[in-house]
Amino acid sequence: MPRIQILNRVLASNDALAEEHRKQFDNEKITAINIMSAPGSGKTALIEKTVAELKKKVGIFVIEGDIKGDLDAQRVIKAGGKVYQINTDGACHLDAFMLSQVLPKIDYKKIDLLLIENVGNLVCPAEFNLGTHYNVMLLSTPEGADKPAKYPLMFSKADLLIINKIDLKPYVNFDFKALEKSLKIIRPSLEIIKVSCKTGKGLPDWYKWLLNRIPQIANRTPLNSGKRRAHSG
Amino acid sequence: MPRIQILNRVLASNDALAEEHRKQFDNEKITAINIMSAPGSGKTALIEKTVAELKKKVGIFVIEGDIKGDLDAQRVIKAGGKVYQINTDGACHLDAFMLSQVLPKIDYKKIDLLLIENVGNLVCPAEFNLGTHYNVMLLSTPEGADKPAKYPLMFSKADLLIINKIDLKPYVNFDFKALEKSLKIIRPSLEIIKVSCKTGKGLPDWYKWLLNRIPQIANRTPLNSGKRRAHSG
Repeated sequence: MPRIQILNRVLASNDALAEEHRKQFDNEKITAINIMSAPGSGKTALIEKTVAELKKKVGIFVIEGDIKGDLDAQRVIKAGGKVYQINTDGACHLDAFMLSQVLPKIDYKKIDLLLIENVGNLVCPAEFNLGTHYNVMLLSTPEGADKPAKYPLMFSKADLLIINKIDLKPYVNFDFKALEKSLKIIRPSLEIIKVSCKTGKGLPDWYKWLLNRIPQIANRTPLNSGKRRAHSG
Repeated sequence: MPRIQILNRVLASNDALAEEHRKQFDNEKITAINIMSAPGSGKTALIEKTVAELKKKVGIFVIEGDIKGDLDAQRVIKAGGKVYQINTDGACHLDAFMLSQVLPKIDYKKIDLLLIENVGNLVCPAEFNLGTHYNVMLLSTPEGADKPAKYPLMFSKADLLIINKIDLKPYVNFDFKALEKSLKIIRPSLEIIKVSCKTGKGLPDWYKWLLNRIPQIANRTPLNSGKRRAHSG
């Protein structure tokens, strides 16, 4: 099967480069987060809120991954963020090679936290390790609770699942118990935070989670133990 | 660039096989529709409603494409549909080769309409021609109106855009004018039908569109001219 052999080779060389990125993040004391979801789940809205809330406490840099255009980057700039845009030019995911084009431009000395918004896609981004410490994925209530069973890889690689758009829950059939049941099989230890980026509900839990993952911040504020654990991807 | 050469070869052989499928559909007088969208936009809900409404007038067969499992196929069966499930086993789209595994099992004599639900993904499925006559894509209001600019290929290949979940419009920021503006650049002639699969609003327009694309049905009912035009994909 030559196609599969080639894919494996591509993934292996991607992993090797991701490992280099990871070493660089560690050396520079950067916590790097890969944010993934289907299109329209609210990744950019989450980043906008996070930048606006935390930019005075934390040095944040954002990388926006989009097939085309810079709509999301413009939104992050408006929220007060510093951002580089990667256009994948048709590709359905970010990979470690694309990241290599952008990382040398970042002034690490000013940064504690690197947020990378992947291409909106519940399938392919999960296959490509970027070297980040954590995979954070979003699922919004209108998408439905059946997604882990149908897109298991993404959920199996997530370190945190953010359920967004909980303000819409009264109007959509989102079966939270069914979600928990299927996650028990695919990713039993997956932490879940419920938020509405629109109303702001639940966002403090996300900020706390995030700050706890930045050792230099967690150690100087009275937050819970901010253990930095290995990235699962 | 060997990766790109290989991708082009894969797409060329996929296109050749899709052409064979198309000839078979034409010989058997089947109208075949490729239904695509992001995860959770409502493809299965649309198929459920369509099967329940039209199964007495039209011979319908459904092919369900999912990475894993048969949740959607079970829903279509409950709605009274006949269905085959394709599991892509990780792949992010259906292709003409996967379809070849299933098409020989279909009894074409009983069928006028073949509905194919692609994997929920706003990127990759648009690259793989299945030999269908029409690409129907869904966008649901909670996903936002910025999607054509960010995922142009899928929109550029669509013959019909169904805006689903219009019942949620009062609760989400869906800028219909911005959508129309970006579609004017990417796909100026794209027909749009607004529906709510939940309330049923707008669905009669979709049924009419569909029946008009089945020549043997359109010719015997007093519907508008049901010209069958070339698939753009």
